[in-house]
Amino acid sequence: MQIAVVLFDRFTALDAVGPYEMLSRAPGAEPVFVAERTGAVRNDSGSLSLVADRTLADTPAPDVVIVPGGPGQSDQMENQALLGWLRTVDATSTWTTSVCTGSLLLAAAGLLTGRRATSHWLALDVLETFGAAPTGERVVFDGKYVTAAGVSAGIDMGLTLLGRIAGDEHARTVQLLTEYDPQPPYDCGSPEKAPAAMVGEWRARSRFILT
Amino acid sequence: MQIAVVLFDRFTALDAVGPYEMLSRAPGAEPVFVAERTGAVRNDSGSLSLVADRTLADTPAPDVVIVPGGPGQSDQMENQALLGWLRTVDATSTWTTSVCTGSLLLAAAGLLTGRRATSHWLALDVLETFGAAPTGERVVFDGKYVTAAGVSAGIDMGLTLLGRIAGDEHARTVQLLTEYDPQPPYDCGSPEKAPAAMVGEWRARSRFILT
Repeated sequence: MQIAVVLFDRFTALDAVGPYEMLSRAPGAEPVFVAERTGAVRNDSGSLSLVADRTLADTPAPDVVIVPGGPGQSDQMENQALLGWLRTVDATSTWTTSVCTGSLLLAAAGLLTGRRATSHWLALDVLETFGAAPTGERVVFDGKYVTAAGVSAGIDMGLTLLGRIAGDEHARTVQLLTEYDPQPPYDCGSPEKAPAAMVGEWRARSRFILT
Repeated sequence: MQIAVVLFDRFTALDAVGPYEMLSRAPGAEPVFVAERTGAVRNDSGSLSLVADRTLADTPAPDVVIVPGGPGQSDQMENQALLGWLRTVDATSTWTTSVCTGSLLLAAAGLLTGRRATSHWLALDVLETFGAAPTGERVVFDGKYVTAAGVSAGIDMGLTLLGRIAGDEHARTVQLLTEYDPQPPYDCGSPEKAPAAMVGEWRARSRFILT
């Protein structure tokens, strides 16, 4: 089972590594990090590089596709090399997935039209403009399309999908071995739970961030 | 505020990226990935490389040190280049931290003697042999030493420490922007919550994993 994790300039590292850490523990998993060109790909803050070991062109038929998000997503929205690859591999993938604003790339490739999907809470409106039906849920399954909310939601997506792929018992074992028993020190991780002023401030700022 | 994330062969990626994703969002943060040599460092499964941009030698005085764990930790327990560097930078660090079996490296460097600390649940006994006082807590503060339990616990450690460094309001904002509102699909993420048979099986296996 080849799992292709897509990298592009200014992606968010946890978007990619969260679901990778869960799904790479499936029996028979062959994860591979892919990008237009092989080599180091810088993340959003520029302080971390992950290495793409394969090019998109050399990865024509992954079983699972994971598309992370991050500020760099906006530069990819008309990149036909990436969007065309997403359409091509989606034709034969078992699961096509995204984390955070990665769903906007799936949507731009035309893969989420008429489908229930999610994204970072600040990007749900944009997702709708591509004909998807955004939900406020953290992990959304619609057929073989699995989308996760912002950044850390990719871990929940990865573990949930691992259960579908490898069974609940295996997924529970991975949860135990990765000690995924989250205990956030605050309860401010969604727009429903955060103070309205904080949410409003970021909604205002996001008009300039997400285009 | 320089934040040095230590890489070594066969580290666990989420151990490093989880706290990095939180702490790198502190005002004035200058995160840097460091290793004995610069260049790509392979993770535990061999399918992902993170790039070390600086050598340990070129990073003599970070403000925050983050030591991940992973199967490769056991090969580092007598690596005096790494252990000596940990002792040196600890002399001037503001915070010395670890995730998962990274605490065994801090302990091997002599930094946790007599201190409350934690590690992956399968490694708590080993931690004790180095004179530390292991607790079953997910994130443990003892002075400037902050240790986290297995793999995913580094995210909770990072967000908790971000609150100490940058204030609760900033940390809550980061929680909202990374949408850290975890919703695991199972409740099996600790030895207290997992079935006894599953826990027992892995305790038996770990005698061969952790040395």
